[in-house]
Amino acid sequence: MERVYATYWIETPLELPRAAETLAGEQSSGTFVPVPGETEELKQRFAARVESVELLGEVAAPSLPGAKRGSRYQQGRVVVSWSVENFGNNLPVLMSTLQGNLYELSQLSGLRLVDFEVPDSFANHFPGPRFGVSGTRAAIAAPDDRPMIGTIIKPSVGLSPDETAQWVRTLLDAGVDFVKDDELMGNPGHSPFDARVDAVVRVVHDYQERTGRGVMIAFNISDEWDAMQRHYDKLVAVGGTCAMLSVNSIGLAGVKKICDHGELVVHGHRNGWGMLNRYPALGTEFAAYQKFWRLAGVDQIHVNGIENKFWEPDDSVVRSIEACRKPLLNGKRILPVISSGQWGGQAPETFRRIGTVDLLYLAGGGIAAHPGGPAAGVRAIRAAWEGAVAGMTLEQIASQSLEVREAVEKFGGAHCR
Amino acid sequence: MERVYATYWIETPLELPRAAETLAGEQSSGTFVPVPGETEELKQRFAARVESVELLGEVAAPSLPGAKRGSRYQQGRVVVSWSVENFGNNLPVLMSTLQGNLYELSQLSGLRLVDFEVPDSFANHFPGPRFGVSGTRAAIAAPDDRPMIGTIIKPSVGLSPDETAQWVRTLLDAGVDFVKDDELMGNPGHSPFDARVDAVVRVVHDYQERTGRGVMIAFNISDEWDAMQRHYDKLVAVGGTCAMLSVNSIGLAGVKKICDHGELVVHGHRNGWGMLNRYPALGTEFAAYQKFWRLAGVDQIHVNGIENKFWEPDDSVVRSIEACRKPLLNGKRILPVISSGQWGGQAPETFRRIGTVDLLYLAGGGIAAHPGGPAAGVRAIRAAWEGAVAGMTLEQIASQSLEVREAVEKFGGAHCR
Repeated sequence: MERVYATYWIETPLELPRAAETLAGEQSSGTFVPVPGETEELKQRFAARVESVELLGEVAAPSLPGAKRGSRYQQGRVVVSWSVENFGNNLPVLMSTLQGNLYELSQLSGLRLVDFEVPDSFANHFPGPRFGVSGTRAAIAAPDDRPMIGTIIKPSVGLSPDETAQWVRTLLDAGVDFVKDDELMGNPGHSPFDARVDAVVRVVHDYQERTGRGVMIAFNISDEWDAMQRHYDKLVAVGGTCAMLSVNSIGLAGVKKICDHGELVVHGHRNGWGMLNRYPALGTEFAAYQKFWRLAGVDQIHVNGIENKFWEPDDSVVRSIEACRKPLLNGKRILPVISSGQWGGQAPETFRRIGTVDLLYLAGGGIAAHPGGPAAGVRAIRAAWEGAVAGMTLEQIASQSLEVREAVEKFGGAHCR
Repeated sequence: MERVYATYWIETPLELPRAAETLAGEQSSGTFVPVPGETEELKQRFAARVESVELLGEVAAPSLPGAKRGSRYQQGRVVVSWSVENFGNNLPVLMSTLQGNLYELSQLSGLRLVDFEVPDSFANHFPGPRFGVSGTRAAIAAPDDRPMIGTIIKPSVGLSPDETAQWVRTLLDAGVDFVKDDELMGNPGHSPFDARVDAVVRVVHDYQERTGRGVMIAFNISDEWDAMQRHYDKLVAVGGTCAMLSVNSIGLAGVKKICDHGELVVHGHRNGWGMLNRYPALGTEFAAYQKFWRLAGVDQIHVNGIENKFWEPDDSVVRSIEACRKPLLNGKRILPVISSGQWGGQAPETFRRIGTVDLLYLAGGGIAAHPGGPAAGVRAIRAAWEGAVAGMTLEQIASQSLEVREAVEKFGGAHCR
């Protein structure tokens, strides 16, 4: 029988191997005393199995409260496996098995799901992203020698449908490939979803007739189930191309169901992610996190950006992008969405670190608040990326481009620590 | 316009009031520079508002990595409010607004959503639990002078439908009011959902014909959307009474949709919760967490238990139970589900701390592995609770009950730190 393999970073007051066995026991038998009916044969077949244990170091004090006392706390990497027979093709139960009550164990003073591997047979049930990198490029008709460039409608809340549409017209005229709603913007009274879509789509169709250029608008359909389904159907009906989902707030069951429709590109927003990741001894690594959403079928997922305005170090952002670029089953590749304080100045370092332009590069203020206006903002970002791909430094690029110079002047310090 | 109020515990290298303003700004405008179109009038109407700031103390080192450097880090409690106009009746967008990107802010070195208040008008859209405490008691026909006593089918995975049904028969004959699937048990090949339900329901109906006693079985319907819906329909078709959901693994959209059907009691399992709560400077308090699920309509929710086998201190468990007991809108009360290493010995302390028997008290090994068998296990728990309500200590209860004495001997040390 095929198995699922999960890699954890753990910290424990116990000997590492014993902690690993406890972890495996909790997620296959799960009570504090042996119970009748738990035969050896049954254990063989269904028990989680510790595959490997690697000691990484030890610390004097526990990273999480509530752990059993120890004289020292060992840290290490453990691999545990389960027979797929335990859960079948059931993403929520897979998640409950790989994470679930493990974070509650007093035998652990730190736990992080690092990554997991699913067997090839999962491909039959989980086709993964229907569009991904290639499908998004095809819809946008963006050349593959540069990132797709997008922006967020700002202010996040408050604009009427007509004001939103006007602003979208300005952004499209400025040359962006992609425009998205903010995650705070769903279906509020002052900008009902249907009215906003109608107003914006009119502008998009008009723009495309004028220019022949492909663009993509990600409308935030995040809502309760029936409303979300209505929003999706509305987008399909008016010829929309992309639905945005706040994946953590909606959850796996809802997100997979939406992706399974397969008619729209799904833009996955990870807001809430910091809660699952910011403390290093708790939660999950992005490599594991993004895999759940890829299995669900999400096409694009947020990964933050180099020199972002948030807390996350560049190394972590780079690891996230690399995780997205690793193949998963036979599925299409998920498109990493770069954002947060981006204005083009980060292009050289981003390209140097990750060596690809298969990105959706989002700039909010970097476009809207460029001193030369949004069109200058987009030109600055394009110039920055062209230069980055050509191996130039930001200084070299700025010396050749007025818009980049203006951007450096205005934004160059805005995101600095 | 009505407002939603959220209380946060924050830690920051900035002055506390400035950090509060940053938090509010991120969740209503949300970019790193002012943008065109963000007029004063629009800000007045849609901006999040800082309602209060209370300094609690300061520390020398930041609790989370990636924060801006400070000479010291202030900790405090802040209340922020939003007009309901910003999100309408949209739970996922409400969650994205109250939590979302806030955990990413480098201006914060700690953030915890403590609680939030929704306006009365939410009652029109969010009826809350359809059954709750009273509906569960009515279905079980348990007298209201004691907790409802339940158990979990163990081993968690591996039993065939017939073995499961046989075990359920034993548990019902032992006198439990409630039996639930484990969260690891969904719809696997060796125990397909429909076959398990058919086998178990046959036993339940037979038991009820024999005894006339009401009992409730919580089948874990957690699955992908269509399958979950099929499982729900199956339960309704065969006269089931309760559906169990792993709420974190399914997510808000799926859970609310299931609750909206309103035909079955919904048992909310919080596995994965430790990830959101165990590090004190990150995540969310249970008071806020349970509110999202009550708004979604969950009837019963796990709160861990006194002297549990997990990491959580008793004070935290008590706070969780108190949060469940606080009224929310006009909704029915959600039923707190006590579990984890319970065997009855915790009854006196549980009752002393919370003063109510409106609980679902779950014991797994405490029933299945009682030296006198499951019936003795249930009698021990009932005796322990009777004594607890009468104000007796565990020692006094044990002196009067053989089954409690046996339980003390077997389990008395099993959960100790």
